Amino acid sequence: MTGQLKDFLATRKQVIEETLPTFIQKLNTTQSLKNAMLYSLEAGGKRLRPVLVLALLHTYKKPERDGLATACAIEMIHTYSLIHDDLPCMDDDDLRRGKPTNHKVFGEALAVLAGDSLLTESFSIIVNDPYCPSEQKLRLITELVKAAGAEGMVGGQVLDMEGEAKELSLLELQHIHENKTAKLLAYSLLAGGILAGAPECDIENLRKIGYHLGIAFQIRDDILDIEGSEDRIGKPVGSDSVNEKNTYPKLLTMQGAKDKLNDHISQAQLFIKELTVEAPLLLEICELIANRDH
Amino acid sequence: MTGQLKDFLATRKQVIEETLPTFIQKLNTTQSLKNAMLYSLEAGGKRLRPVLVLALLHTYKKPERDGLATACAIEMIHTYSLIHDDLPCMDDDDLRRGKPTNHKVFGEALAVLAGDSLLTESFSIIVNDPYCPSEQKLRLITELVKAAGAEGMVGGQVLDMEGEAKELSLLELQHIHENKTAKLLAYSLLAGGILAGAPECDIENLRKIGYHLGIAFQIRDDILDIEGSEDRIGKPVGSDSVNEKNTYPKLLTMQGAKDKLNDHISQAQLFIKELTVEAPLLLEICELIANRDH
Repeated sequence: MTGQLKDFLATRKQVIEETLPTFIQKLNTTQSLKNAMLYSLEAGGKRLRPVLVLALLHTYKKPERDGLATACAIEMIHTYSLIHDDLPCMDDDDLRRGKPTNHKVFGEALAVLAGDSLLTESFSIIVNDPYCPSEQKLRLITELVKAAGAEGMVGGQVLDMEGEAKELSLLELQHIHENKTAKLLAYSLLAGGILAGAPECDIENLRKIGYHLGIAFQIRDDILDIEGSEDRIGKPVGSDSVNEKNTYPKLLTMQGAKDKLNDHISQAQLFIKELTVEAPLLLEICELIANRDH
Repeated sequence: MTGQLKDFLATRKQVIEETLPTFIQKLNTTQSLKNAMLYSLEAGGKRLRPVLVLALLHTYKKPERDGLATACAIEMIHTYSLIHDDLPCMDDDDLRRGKPTNHKVFGEALAVLAGDSLLTESFSIIVNDPYCPSEQKLRLITELVKAAGAEGMVGGQVLDMEGEAKELSLLELQHIHENKTAKLLAYSLLAGGILAGAPECDIENLRKIGYHLGIAFQIRDDILDIEGSEDRIGKPVGSDSVNEKNTYPKLLTMQGAKDKLNDHISQAQLFIKELTVEAPLLLEICELIANRDH
């Protein structure tokens, strides 16, 4: 990772982390709900999705300010999905990023409701973005629902649950992760492109780049569960194997999974080179996703 | 209830019930998720909220077609809230409208996700309404988030949970129901007014009407839990008392609760008479809410 990329990621992560809580703090609601929302929003993480939005605006030489609200909305949706995923009736996880999960701290009921309100408020953040024209807002919401709802992330979560007891084919596994992970990640690129006023041919390429990056991201996740460091990831390694989860290394062997990861990264980079703008930052982010250690 | 009102309610309920499933059926997602969403959407109920939207368009002599999408979106949000409220970690209810609750049929995980996707898709329905101008859509979403999110329904649900173990004052009880019940009900009137292009003075009156109707609706609910018929309500009566819930009859005596109900209905009717249009249908709906037996 070059110093330039490192600097970009660190400074934008900071902007995101400073801005995120402001949307919650100004809500006129009970403090306990705000605390539960803030707890998970402030639990850290890579902030990859919101940083991707800003990276797109940077790439198109537009003010990054124009992407900040949507970037935060995406991170709020990502956060709600983690809170609900961790619930006892779902993955039943006690730890997330090295901290107790939301329901462990606030109880299940408040965790469900904190997730519900993070999801709900995210739409308001886009609608009330002072820097975004009305027609763009409507497009952003249409695409967000496709990425996060029944046709995207939530649908993928259902497929994932249903696939748990079965031996899946590579195509089935791909289909799960396309929905569960790739679509919201792809949406970050797409939203950045929409906000930057990118031409339609670029928007279509951003969808493809997002798809490949999203799948690559998931393969790297599976690899890290075997080869990663517990300290870096913030949760125990080897849990996929204990839970007999369908993973890329299990289906393809470790070397096969690594080859697959590299394929998707190469594909993403090819489509990045087809954009109407030079995008060195995006090319570097591809490398980062391929090699990340947490 | 006059024959005319009865006819209005029955025909519009039918339109709503015919339209609601179409938004789910066309989703490109796994059938099990659609089934879980449809199960609760099709479980019946009064459809009061969506009918109120259509009643507003009727009152302003505008095509009711213009309110159908938003009406369905509101019913989807109401339905998601019922699914999540019924979860074991929340109210732990086995029956809803005489049928097993969503998680009893589909399991808790799918129930959480069916709720999440009903909430998410509802925003898309408003955004993709072919009869609504862009600026109206954005206003509808802003108001919807206020009514359904942390500053409205979800916030009210948190307050309700927190109030369970305590003896509440009348003001505290009112505050809970204003958020938990009245705001989404008021939104139905507000949304109808926005869609009908009602003048701003009417929009502000619709907020007040909605507030009083919403509180009245909740008081009637509390009364029905004591005096109602199990067959008509679809769930056991007396459960509030068993659960030591804070209710209006408990705080005010039964007669006090009935007086309070009538006060709110009268207030609502006063504000209805201040609208810039004649609204006999809305006046009749007030009577219906005051006297409903389920």
